[in-house]
Amino acid sequence: MTSRIVALAGGVGAARFLAGLAPLVPPRDLMIVVNTGDDTELHGLHISPDLDTVTYTLAGVAHPQQGWGLGGDTFACLESLSRLGAPDWFRLGDRDLATHLYRTSRLRAGAPLSRVTQEIALALGVRQTILPMSDDEVKTRLRTPAGELEFQEYFVKRRHRDTVKEVRYRGASRARPAPRVLAALRSARGVVVCPSNPVLSIGPILAIPGVRLALRQSRGRVVAVSPLVAGRALRGPADRLMRSLGLRADAAGVAELYRDFLDVLVMDHADRGLAPDVRRLGVEPVITDTIMDTALRRRALARAVLELL
Amino acid sequence: MTSRIVALAGGVGAARFLAGLAPLVPPRDLMIVVNTGDDTELHGLHISPDLDTVTYTLAGVAHPQQGWGLGGDTFACLESLSRLGAPDWFRLGDRDLATHLYRTSRLRAGAPLSRVTQEIALALGVRQTILPMSDDEVKTRLRTPAGELEFQEYFVKRRHRDTVKEVRYRGASRARPAPRVLAALRSARGVVVCPSNPVLSIGPILAIPGVRLALRQSRGRVVAVSPLVAGRALRGPADRLMRSLGLRADAAGVAELYRDFLDVLVMDHADRGLAPDVRRLGVEPVITDTIMDTALRRRALARAVLELL
Repeated sequence: MTSRIVALAGGVGAARFLAGLAPLVPPRDLMIVVNTGDDTELHGLHISPDLDTVTYTLAGVAHPQQGWGLGGDTFACLESLSRLGAPDWFRLGDRDLATHLYRTSRLRAGAPLSRVTQEIALALGVRQTILPMSDDEVKTRLRTPAGELEFQEYFVKRRHRDTVKEVRYRGASRARPAPRVLAALRSARGVVVCPSNPVLSIGPILAIPGVRLALRQSRGRVVAVSPLVAGRALRGPADRLMRSLGLRADAAGVAELYRDFLDVLVMDHADRGLAPDVRRLGVEPVITDTIMDTALRRRALARAVLELL
Repeated sequence: MTSRIVALAGGVGAARFLAGLAPLVPPRDLMIVVNTGDDTELHGLHISPDLDTVTYTLAGVAHPQQGWGLGGDTFACLESLSRLGAPDWFRLGDRDLATHLYRTSRLRAGAPLSRVTQEIALALGVRQTILPMSDDEVKTRLRTPAGELEFQEYFVKRRHRDTVKEVRYRGASRARPAPRVLAALRSARGVVVCPSNPVLSIGPILAIPGVRLALRQSRGRVVAVSPLVAGRALRGPADRLMRSLGLRADAAGVAELYRDFLDVLVMDHADRGLAPDVRRLGVEPVITDTIMDTALRRRALARAVLELL
């Protein structure tokens, strides 16, 4: 366990970063702890969007553009579901469905999510350890002028257009971290907080009792990659959301959310001017290219982060 | 309700007969009560093969040859399930899966199977009333030298090769007929027992308390179409099975199983010689073409049956 790198991850931003990192680290030395606050039930299926995005990406089968689902998937089942009057706003591909069917059926048989996640990863040829943050249910809920929304309702169905006034991680205070997570965080050679939404993707992981403390106690360095560049999220609503929650919506705002455990914040050249603010929070700013628009840049960013651990 | 025709049905044999009958009867005058003793759970989904075969056939979307599933369906999900190590001997098409997902999710939400069945039929444009024999669980189990088998295990997985020593309809004695079934049987203008396996398809329906009595009390005639021609089942294991259960494996054996409620048995020209045996059981034999190898012959058989009601 001693040489391990632990990554905290949300969905597509994290997955792209991890696609750059994975080839640089022996698979058994990389443990990825994934947000499950976005998990939802649709058509009676347990859907874990972030776990799947990370798993599919590391397996090399993720859709190359859309940020969810499998490349080359078809939608015959969803079309028929729609004809039956079932909701079709959550796009479930035919092959993707197999993952949800398998997961749901294993969970109903009593297997914990962490085991099922490993089974799916293994079947897809992923050799890194992918774990949900918890085997217990945590549900990210968002208070908006339109009422309290479930995560996928806010994010997918309503395309994150609502102003978020408050975020709750329902169930988090009673949830236990998945087995091995706390020990891995404490003993890691280094911890990476992936460039994911700090409130919606990393927030739920940090809300699990014991996680923040284990991060503070980690014997390795804790390095985060800012998902905000020049005060903008590269994808998703992080900037607007942080602003509407009264948070500072830039790299320094990210450092603020992580300051109790964070050693280094990797931020983009565009945010050079924020370095003093970050340093003032007790976090070391490191400036580099953080925009992962090519495989080469992903790899370069991952290498830069690895060197900091 | 007074002019209604009620059909008791299994899977493909019944469905083909009903495809001939349906165009001859106003949709609201035809109620089909379908065996659910074959229902099974796979990948966490509630699968009702006979209900689906009947519904898909009446909707005109059934696979034209194979006797199960939808025409033109694809199997992407099943392939992926198989890669995850899940069983793939039960062929679930992508579009077919939508039916099972919808049904399972509605049942979990508390809807009775009879209502869900009507919802599916309606969505597929079927205007006849299709009902499961019961909203309660009944499981046909078969005692064989290989042990006691669940129906689909016997029928699909092991391709009905095992010698059946005993058939049990587990749960039948506590099951209630689906709403409206008993009243419809009693008040029907006529009842048709479709050419389905008398033990495995019609047997479970007859095992529901009250059904046999309602058939005996029916104010209309009860007409069955023999699924055996010249002592052979046209498809499936009915002949072998009846024989291994110690039953007479021909049209007269069918009449024997139904004799307490049956008025007429429609049997094939090939079985003309059995007419006296059938008559001796108090059942009127009617000889016609019962082989439904073309739409024309299906229609002719249906018309002949209709005239008997």
